[in-house]
Amino acid sequence: MVERIAILGTGLLGTSVGLALREAGFKGQIAGWNRHSDQARIALESGAIDSVAVAADAADAALEIARASQVVLLAMPIYATLDFMAQLACVLGSEHMVTDVGSTKRLIAESASRLYNTPERAAFLPGHPMAGKERGGAALGDANLFRGAVWLFTDDPAARRSARSAELVKDWREWVVAMGAKTLDLEPVRHDELVAWVSHLPQFAATALSALLEDEVGDAPELKDVGGRALREMTRLGASPYTMWRDIAHTNTEAVERALLALEQRLAYLRENLRTPALRSEFERANRFRRE
Amino acid sequence: MVERIAILGTGLLGTSVGLALREAGFKGQIAGWNRHSDQARIALESGAIDSVAVAADAADAALEIARASQVVLLAMPIYATLDFMAQLACVLGSEHMVTDVGSTKRLIAESASRLYNTPERAAFLPGHPMAGKERGGAALGDANLFRGAVWLFTDDPAARRSARSAELVKDWREWVVAMGAKTLDLEPVRHDELVAWVSHLPQFAATALSALLEDEVGDAPELKDVGGRALREMTRLGASPYTMWRDIAHTNTEAVERALLALEQRLAYLRENLRTPALRSEFERANRFRRE
Repeated sequence: MVERIAILGTGLLGTSVGLALREAGFKGQIAGWNRHSDQARIALESGAIDSVAVAADAADAALEIARASQVVLLAMPIYATLDFMAQLACVLGSEHMVTDVGSTKRLIAESASRLYNTPERAAFLPGHPMAGKERGGAALGDANLFRGAVWLFTDDPAARRSARSAELVKDWREWVVAMGAKTLDLEPVRHDELVAWVSHLPQFAATALSALLEDEVGDAPELKDVGGRALREMTRLGASPYTMWRDIAHTNTEAVERALLALEQRLAYLRENLRTPALRSEFERANRFRRE
Repeated sequence: MVERIAILGTGLLGTSVGLALREAGFKGQIAGWNRHSDQARIALESGAIDSVAVAADAADAALEIARASQVVLLAMPIYATLDFMAQLACVLGSEHMVTDVGSTKRLIAESASRLYNTPERAAFLPGHPMAGKERGGAALGDANLFRGAVWLFTDDPAARRSARSAELVKDWREWVVAMGAKTLDLEPVRHDELVAWVSHLPQFAATALSALLEDEVGDAPELKDVGGRALREMTRLGASPYTMWRDIAHTNTEAVERALLALEQRLAYLRENLRTPALRSEFERANRFRRE
């Protein structure tokens, strides 16, 4: 039974996991750490975590609470996750399980099989909750963020090589379900291809549309109102932070390039067919995607 | 004071106007007509209209209730609006005002100055409420549809050439505000250019994205769940009906072509810069569009 969890990174996702665990009835200890101590303080005040890691060196503090826990959740951008994976691999042992929330899984799964999942080392379960908000930060933490969302895993059987590891993995997956999420297992490369279509492409499309409209109508704010709900929805993700999406763009470049190119071609096809019957087929195909 | 309104077209918008007028305290008569009589019946049962036009010939019935009213609202796709404008011009007189809800205004404004706004003929006030849903029909009629929305007008001073006409125009604009909308006046060509950016481009982008994803993941419905809220929002407009958007594509082709081409180029720029500092600039520009 998991009784001590460390959340490294108490931004939107980390804080939401803490709150959701409490809501789901988790009675154990939750220690938290964040690179910016104010974010950890907000998470503490919201009840998402019970204690904040403190030490002269910030990274040391993080390693210390990780060592004192059974499950370590890395809730930070992808390159920071990869850095911590390398640092934690040496200080944790077979009594620990590490999991993460990174948006791409190929590099993380590769690092996991290189650095974890051997008899002496900690187990690593790559995870990816398909939930978030267009703005980050502990203050937006939400106990219901994962309710109805899909939580993807790119599970490696090697992570369950011992009875102890298998139990921690099973326990964490049960907590994920208790937080209201539906789990789905994918192979890492397939994961990255799929999210390029259903997550990264919508984000980059919203960014491109928002940046374009900023150039076209950004100097006349009253005109933004004209677009109404449709425009608000189609540009909401325009507020997403570069820092998170840079890591996604860097670690899933080829799949995102393919998806973007396909959308460019689709828009060109629509543009060339605004007055032909092909427009009807495109609307009907789009309607099918949204059929109930 | 307007006391008799005819709503020709009791789909989503026409029915919502009837309901919103009642909610705003309109005590006069509202007659309704729809090409499909079941839609008029639903509007009648919902309380959006008091009576349904009936006659041996459907179009005759519409003209008859228009003649018996002071204000005639055309709430139908653009080409149908243009057809009715031609038919009504001959049977209405200076005691009437006609207005519409069409999504493009250049052709409608041209037709209005050709067929209306002379001393013997009815006044015509081209209107365009920036509100709707991704699916149509009287059953989705909503008294609050226009609350907080912008209701555009491409007002022609000629429509107010007589005291009687000026009063009807003023009255209708006041009812629009009473329904909760904010009015904004634009010149017709400027209107069509602006909505190409803030309304038509988001729609066609959602259609292209939805049609593309139908091809990519449409055969695995469980994968749609993976995208979560972001994907749902970015494809909601994929459900929009071809019949309405065909008329928009046909009557605002050049402006929509320009907007689509600009989005294609913007996506290509993003794709070519997934690993360069230009990605940061694009995210920052998108962030600015969404700044509070």
